[in-house]
Amino acid sequence: MTVAELQYALGMAGTVAFAATAVAAVAPKRIDLFGALVMGVITSIGGGTVRDLILGVPVFWSEDLNYIWVALAASLLAFIANKRMTGRQVYRAMLYLDAAGVALFAIQAVEKTMDLSFALPLGPILLGIITAIGGGLLRDVLAGNETLLMRKELYAVPVTLGCITYIGLLAMFPGAALTIGAVSMLLIFCLRSAAIYWHLSVPDSLLSRPGDSKETEK
Amino acid sequence: MTVAELQYALGMAGTVAFAATAVAAVAPKRIDLFGALVMGVITSIGGGTVRDLILGVPVFWSEDLNYIWVALAASLLAFIANKRMTGRQVYRAMLYLDAAGVALFAIQAVEKTMDLSFALPLGPILLGIITAIGGGLLRDVLAGNETLLMRKELYAVPVTLGCITYIGLLAMFPGAALTIGAVSMLLIFCLRSAAIYWHLSVPDSLLSRPGDSKETEK
Amino acid sequence: MTVAELQYALGMAGTVAFAATAVAAVAPKRIDLFGALVMGVITSIGGGTVRDLILGVPVFWSEDLNYIWVALAASLLAFIANKRMTGRQVYRAMLYLDAAGVALFAIQAVEKTMDLSFALPLGPILLGIITAIGGGLLRDVLAGNETLLMRKELYAVPVTLGCITYIGLLAMFPGAALTIGAVSMLLIFCLRSAAIYWHLSVPDSLLSRPGDSKETEK
Repeated sequence: MTVAELQYALGMAGTVAFAATAVAAVAPKRIDLFGALVMGVITSIGGGTVRDLILGVPVFWSEDLNYIWVALAASLLAFIANKRMTGRQVYRAMLYLDAAGVALFAIQAVEKTMDLSFALPLGPILLGIITAIGGGLLRDVLAGNETLLMRKELYAVPVTLGCITYIGLLAMFPGAALTIGAVSMLLIFCLRSAAIYWHLSVPDSLLSRPGDSKETEK
Repeated sequence: MTVAELQYALGMAGTVAFAATAVAAVAPKRIDLFGALVMGVITSIGGGTVRDLILGVPVFWSEDLNYIWVALAASLLAFIANKRMTGRQVYRAMLYLDAAGVALFAIQAVEKTMDLSFALPLGPILLGIITAIGGGLLRDVLAGNETLLMRKELYAVPVTLGCITYIGLLAMFPGAALTIGAVSMLLIFCLRSAAIYWHLSVPDSLLSRPGDSKETEK
Repeated sequence: MTVAELQYALGMAGTVAFAATAVAAVAPKRIDLFGALVMGVITSIGGGTVRDLILGVPVFWSEDLNYIWVALAASLLAFIANKRMTGRQVYRAMLYLDAAGVALFAIQAVEKTMDLSFALPLGPILLGIITAIGGGLLRDVLAGNETLLMRKELYAVPVTLGCITYIGLLAMFPGAALTIGAVSMLLIFCLRSAAIYWHLSVPDSLLSRPGDSKETEK
């Protein structure tokens, strides 16, 4: 198995995870099969689609429809499974797979943006974050759920640290892109997994004070 | 009247319907005239705009501003009408016109995507759905309403079946695009009209079980 | 200081204002530092990004990352400040700075769209509005707040009047673009400032009747 093949396999695994966790996230709201499929596909490809629009390149799935087929199949299976089992442990397993998907999609986006020399050095970090969390944001907005930006859970922070790590290490060791990519992905995955396992959240000192003022805003 | 002229007239009728039903949908929330105009225009052109961005072609209304003028006029009239009459029957008439607009916009998008050979065969179906329901999704998100993806109403399913029918029939009868287009539009319109008339909704067997698990998701 | 330098300085001031008011708007919901930075950046560059995607040109911040750096710095400062002081007067000062940003971004967008001869004459007005309020709409949707389209506050109306004034005056005095730009910005800023100062809102005669019908819509 070559590196490209490994990355492709990981990308498909991430697609499965994104679609399946999307269905699990919207299912409590009594969604129908069609809505579940749409949510699964949007969550899987939404972030990368926004990235490609901003980069001004063809959207990635237009050149490889496997991303859509896999998302459809995973959403369908998740919808059926959701009706059959309470699936608490399945859901937790999905969360770790989702963490792997986030790690992979973020670093892939950083690499793609650097290859295009787009808005260095901030561009790759921004588009890495957008690619990793954009699909989930779209899903939450369309489902009427609170978006992850408003939750104390550590989700986007590991992604950001991983993208910054990639850029920083590559500036120091320009020849080691492959190793640095693997290290950065591992960093995101481990941080996110730790957050899932120990229910880590943002420390209170980094939270805004709620409801203290600004009632005039509306 | 040529076929092109007929399609153009239908497109304008669909624009009127999308704008007017948009105003009717947000008016109960006490919106002002300006907000009503914006909602009408966004609902009318939103789906097609997202389609054209994904296709990487100039947005359709930049080459024919009649789509915007008509949307503005229809929104204004709907806003005035909404203040004058309870309009239950007018609203129901609008729903059928909206069904015609959905049918037309979906199949037009399928045809445009096929002409560009974009991501065949899934691309035309995806972009048909996005074009038909994208504007309404944007409207609901901006208005703080539940999006149609979370409702049991049969709205997106007829669109999807119509787009799949078009692709399937064209693969079998490559020379009959015009007839197939008309048949597919009619299919969407009839299915959607039946859903409106008999208040059809998705059968319970195709719904997720509500609130069964996943409380850990947040 | 040349005109270009002045416009650039105003653009950065507007970026500061957009980012800082964004943080102030979401802080009451107990957001963390990372979320605050993301909200600040999205609000600052969101509207212009959508404009550039529709125009089909490279997104503006990809060619000048200062827009992002300034937004990040302003968001960080606003986050810290928000924790330290109740800041009612600071917030009101921010509102006026935000009014200046809205005025500048709207007219800049009108000028950019006219330079590209995009969809004249409606295109510049539409993209002026999108650029000025798009970032704020994205922020409100992601934060789960009511969008400004649903509020009675005079926000988008001054922007629209300013954009229309620019187009109208330029048609009459084609050689005076610079003066007309300054006049239009001033018009938006004064109207918006008056709305802030006197708490002006849309007159009831221009509001829809709430909850009168359309319960069938869902």
